[in-house]
Amino acid sequence: MNLGVVTGTVTATVKHPVYRNRRLMVVALCAPDWTRTGRETLAVDTVGSGVGDRVLVLKEGNSARSIFGEGEIPMQEMIVGIVDRVDGEER
Amino acid sequence: MNLGVVTGTVTATVKHPVYRNRRLMVVALCAPDWTRTGRETLAVDTVGSGVGDRVLVLKEGNSARSIFGEGEIPMQEMIVGIVDRVDGEER
Amino acid sequence: MNLGVVTGTVTATVKHPVYRNRRLMVVALCAPDWTRTGRETLAVDTVGSGVGDRVLVLKEGNSARSIFGEGEIPMQEMIVGIVDRVDGEER
Amino acid sequence: MNLGVVTGTVTATVKHPVYRNRRLMVVALCAPDWTRTGRETLAVDTVGSGVGDRVLVLKEGNSARSIFGEGEIPMQEMIVGIVDRVDGEER
Amino acid sequence: MNLGVVTGTVTATVKHPVYRNRRLMVVALCAPDWTRTGRETLAVDTVGSGVGDRVLVLKEGNSARSIFGEGEIPMQEMIVGIVDRVDGEER
Repeated sequence: MNLGVVTGTVTATVKHPVYRNRRLMVVALCAPDWTRTGRETLAVDTVGSGVGDRVLVLKEGNSARSIFGEGEIPMQEMIVGIVDRVDGEER
Repeated sequence: MNLGVVTGTVTATVKHPVYRNRRLMVVALCAPDWTRTGRETLAVDTVGSGVGDRVLVLKEGNSARSIFGEGEIPMQEMIVGIVDRVDGEER
Repeated sequence: MNLGVVTGTVTATVKHPVYRNRRLMVVALCAPDWTRTGRETLAVDTVGSGVGDRVLVLKEGNSARSIFGEGEIPMQEMIVGIVDRVDGEER
Repeated sequence: MNLGVVTGTVTATVKHPVYRNRRLMVVALCAPDWTRTGRETLAVDTVGSGVGDRVLVLKEGNSARSIFGEGEIPMQEMIVGIVDRVDGEER
Repeated sequence: MNLGVVTGTVTATVKHPVYRNRRLMVVALCAPDWTRTGRETLAVDTVGSGVGDRVLVLKEGNSARSIFGEGEIPMQEMIVGIVDRVDGEER
């Protein structure tokens, strides 16, 4: 699981059922002090996040049936939480 | 999930059933502003993409039976969407 | 599996059931001689660890049902042990 | 999935049933123009490949029973095809 | 799968059943010519290896029940073989 900041949204013609009715966000991954690591990822929103929100990003597999046939497991990153606070050393 | 641009195709003698009747594409992975990251990957096309298309690439496992015996799970990257637009900061 | 040192805690509004009643820790990953590698990760605590503890971090998938629907498999890192000693060359 | 060139073979006392009666090859991973990336991997041969062959390497999990007990899933790289040609830009 | 050399052992209070009655080793990962890559990993021994042995390290998931609840899948690296010889170019 990673920390990140939502920086944008993607509009695409996606046929994969995992993405139906879900927004696809651009997330800049961050260290615990919220400096950006330089890596960006695309993540499916599940919590109603918007651009600028500090979020938790979880990599998740999905074993539901897909258009590619049964048994395929897409692995995507999902925004699963809004971060309130990070405590600890150096913070 | 990653953004990328299709840059070529691969012709190969592949015995694995996952690849039957599917084209194998070379994809240059891109940042959200479409600059190339320098990493390239091979991805199975599922949306009729062609060279030059801006696409979404998803890593996916497949638990279908394979020539290697039951229960094996190939993990391959698949082109699952054509990107219309990326919005957000710095774009 | 990796070695690390707990450096902080994360407070977040997380909807994912995997995180219910579990604390989310910031862990600085370490080499076997306990020098930090520079990489940090978030990990769910399962052993009652606190800031400063030297721990074992395991990546784990979870096939339990989730709020996203059946069959989704979050993959998160978990703190599964407290390290007593590392023996060997250069130590 | 990756492109690579077979560069050697490994002789080992391996107890894991996944490797029974299969040769274990050293593969130098390559970019689409067949320049080596500098990364090497070990891969189980499934197509009768030999040293010098240009191959497709697939990461695959195996959920068959193992000597470690039921339910364990080794993830290994397998040579699943011989490459005939890569077409596209810059080639 | 990777090549490596066992360089040490870890003593820890680990609650996870995957590690019961198994030794946890420090392994320095190696290129096919046995130069060390600089990366180290922790791996569960399954072949009776000791410090100094040249080994095969396999990443493996385990779908057995765990203390965290049914269905969780720890992914750990395991030492599954002792290497006799690596043949090929540049060796």
